[in-house]
Amino acid sequence: MPETYRVGLLGHGTVGAAFEQLLAERADAIAHITGYQPQVTGVLTRSRGDFDEILANSDLIVELIGGIEPARDYVLRAMQAGKHVVSANKLLLATYGEELWSCARSNEVQLRFEGAVAGVVPVIRVLQESLAGAHVERIHGIVNGTTNFILTEMARAGATYEGALQRAQELGYAEADPTDDVTGRDAAAKMAILARLAFSTPVHLDQVPYEGIEHITAEDVAYARDLGLGLKLIGTAERVDGGISVRVHPAFLYPGHPLASVNGSFNAVTIESDAITEITLSGPGAGGAQTASAVLGDVISAMIPPASTPETSEALAIVEDVENAFYLSMEVDDQPGVLAQVAEVLGMQGASIKSVLQRGMDGHARLTMVLHPLLESRFYGAVQLVSRMAFVRSQPRAIRVIEEEFE
Amino acid sequence: MPETYRVGLLGHGTVGAAFEQLLAERADAIAHITGYQPQVTGVLTRSRGDFDEILANSDLIVELIGGIEPARDYVLRAMQAGKHVVSANKLLLATYGEELWSCARSNEVQLRFEGAVAGVVPVIRVLQESLAGAHVERIHGIVNGTTNFILTEMARAGATYEGALQRAQELGYAEADPTDDVTGRDAAAKMAILARLAFSTPVHLDQVPYEGIEHITAEDVAYARDLGLGLKLIGTAERVDGGISVRVHPAFLYPGHPLASVNGSFNAVTIESDAITEITLSGPGAGGAQTASAVLGDVISAMIPPASTPETSEALAIVEDVENAFYLSMEVDDQPGVLAQVAEVLGMQGASIKSVLQRGMDGHARLTMVLHPLLESRFYGAVQLVSRMAFVRSQPRAIRVIEEEFE
Ligand SMILES: NC(=O)c1ccc[n+]([C@@H]2O[C@H](COP(=O)([O-])OP(=O)(O)OC[C@H]3O[C@@H](n4cnc5c(N)ncnc54)[C@H](OP(=O)(O)O)[C@@H]3O)[C@@H](O)[C@H]2O)c1
Ligand SMILES: NC(=O)c1ccc[n+]([C@@H]2O[C@H](COP(=O)([O-])OP(=O)(O)OC[C@H]3O[C@@H](n4cnc5c(N)ncnc54)[C@H](OP(=O)(O)O)[C@@H]3O)[C@@H](O)[C@H]2O)c1
Repeated sequence: MPETYRVGLLGHGTVGAAFEQLLAERADAIAHITGYQPQVTGVLTRSRGDFDEILANSDLIVELIGGIEPARDYVLRAMQAGKHVVSANKLLLATYGEELWSCARSNEVQLRFEGAVAGVVPVIRVLQESLAGAHVERIHGIVNGTTNFILTEMARAGATYEGALQRAQELGYAEADPTDDVTGRDAAAKMAILARLAFSTPVHLDQVPYEGIEHITAEDVAYARDLGLGLKLIGTAERVDGGISVRVHPAFLYPGHPLASVNGSFNAVTIESDAITEITLSGPGAGGAQTASAVLGDVISAMIPPASTPETSEALAIVEDVENAFYLSMEVDDQPGVLAQVAEVLGMQGASIKSVLQRGMDGHARLTMVLHPLLESRFYGAVQLVSRMAFVRSQPRAIRVIEEEFE
Repeated sequence: MPETYRVGLLGHGTVGAAFEQLLAERADAIAHITGYQPQVTGVLTRSRGDFDEILANSDLIVELIGGIEPARDYVLRAMQAGKHVVSANKLLLATYGEELWSCARSNEVQLRFEGAVAGVVPVIRVLQESLAGAHVERIHGIVNGTTNFILTEMARAGATYEGALQRAQELGYAEADPTDDVTGRDAAAKMAILARLAFSTPVHLDQVPYEGIEHITAEDVAYARDLGLGLKLIGTAERVDGGISVRVHPAFLYPGHPLASVNGSFNAVTIESDAITEITLSGPGAGGAQTASAVLGDVISAMIPPASTPETSEALAIVEDVENAFYLSMEVDDQPGVLAQVAEVLGMQGASIKSVLQRGMDGHARLTMVLHPLLESRFYGAVQLVSRMAFVRSQPRAIRVIEEEFE
């Protein structure tokens, strides 16, 4: 009979309960791999368990409470007591990451958090281990399953945002209060964590500007389809001018892009670096069983050998104004010379048109175009000028376009 | 100045030379992560270096010679001398894997081999670590870049097999002697390694039946396109009837399948398991720099902590006759009742038609169909009967179809 490895479980909700069940199912197989029989020896919820007692009787703590406090306090105290910690808490890591990692380093324990980003998609391990020696240039990610489900519904069924959101709620892909998901804040927290690991520089959630999908219309999706594009909520973390930029916004993708075919509630992350070209990892982005599986992979790794905890080695500036290609769509009077005048105003701001579609609709017309990349500040300046032109009948809609086409 | 970590490099060809360069470029960043400054302290080729001397002066051996001997002998001797080994040698691992892993275990050293399968796509690490606790049900992989490039060319440009192969050779995606790639043998070796890790049961290259792409015609690809399918060389490793089946063959995929959009020389692997649903990893499958990057990730991991070496824990039977859906295409006389008679003969063997396309071509017709899954032995029995029917004018063409459609 192998020795017991004692796991203290904080939180017993969607993920916590799934984790306890999965651990029990796989305990014998894990004992074969590690030489120890893992077992949940204590559970803390609001109504049962005592943290200090659980801590004293555990070799490792799994934190699945969520939120900042008391999760932060428990995680710190566990590491100070010399215990490894596994957590799926993106909010905690995106806001108190430096404090937690530094605590892990000084107590020589492991802090693992695969479940915090993209569910079972093993992007944390790949960044920290497979690509430990790589100079990562850029990450693009679909890291929120709720919004990807909604956008997929809108594209497939021509649904409105509200209709798609309701369907997502009915199917359990969106919470009753979907704010964190649909505003892009959840994705921003995940991108902060990925950027921190990729670039070895501190990145806090507050440094990640985000834009959500609440204002995306069925028309945006339909017109984009005419241009051969698909719409996703994309997180970007990239090196720019010796600094970095980390941000989240809706963006159009060309069909050849590896993220373009990621549908439904799936997540996917593309990592680019000179030596590797680019790799893409995809899979279910959330769900109790899936996240529990990511947590379990971390627990097993912690049971075997000490992994390094990431120390920052860079202090890169966060670049605010970056280049992007844009989609721009507006209603205009159906009269000669409109396109030429719009093109001239755009051109004065350095914006040049890559492709354009003009479609008459009794009396007026819709002008939809994709612009070559330019600084966002210049783009928004140009849009202001265009919106003031006499023949422009609707507020122009602007959405970013990811330009890369991959093989 | 951190202490030097001495790397002995066996082989200095495409991958070996790229690895030496990458290690030098990234040495300072690696020293930051690991606390040791890695350095190539000896190189062995046919014309320079002495193995015993290199071994004595190394902390770790990187084997990039390829083939069985002398690579096997060197790897064994290095581990017996207590050195970690990193290799990209799929042939060696698919044939002498058990001997090597057992040697690693008894000498308590690491044997890492991410570069041996799918280049920079981190499938080995994900199987061994992220999914260490998962019960893997099935793996589908595009694990040979040469054949995927050729098939992509045939689909895109309507090229013949010979034309696409020539183009692959001109662009450096295929070797002068492409036999191992186009016959499926290279992919079979990689699938043997993946199956071994996924199912913890011994799998030898000789137990993996494989079929290549040499006999695929431009017509197969064109007709399949009419049915909405794409053609790939697919490696499969799955649990069947309490045993496993590991095999490689051309197969048609529906457009929703995560491997359907993997084009050019890219590789991709989909891993399915109850708890995770399915994850897909994709990226460049080969190339000196890419493979060197995978090797470097392994070297860094070996520099930090001891990883477990996989021990077999199962002795699963290899199942020979498995179910598959099939595409079947043949020329027939253009006369009434042909389809009904073919359907009847197929039905007698338990084969039922899922979709069918009949197209007249002056005087005769081409009958193309997709059959629902059935045991391969029964399918080939049915094909024999059909091919003997009087109105069948060409040898029927049979190609497997992967049925799963994913979201
Ligand atoms: N759900 C997913 O698909 C998913 C995916 C990825 C990551 N995550 C992350 O996983 C973590 C857990 O998510 P979840 O969906 O499992 O949450 P959940 O269903 O709301 O469960 C939270 C658990 O924590 C307990 N808890 C809350 N406050 C507590 C307190 N002050 N003291 C002790 N226990 C407390 C709750 O206790 P009671 O039972 O007493 O209420 C409950 O058992 C979060 O960080 C989340 O971001 C979730
Ligand atoms: N090329 C790829 O894209 C790729 C991708 C994945 C995996 N791999 C694997 O990586 C390994 C190396 O491939 P490669 O393409 O780099 O091969 P390569 O270009 O042919 O280089 C082989 C190297 O090994 C040396 N060598 C051969 N026989 C030797 C012997 N008896 N004693 C000492 N040295 C010997 C050669 O020496 P000389 O210089 O004296 O000829 C050469 O430096 C293989 O296992 C291959 O399967 C390659």
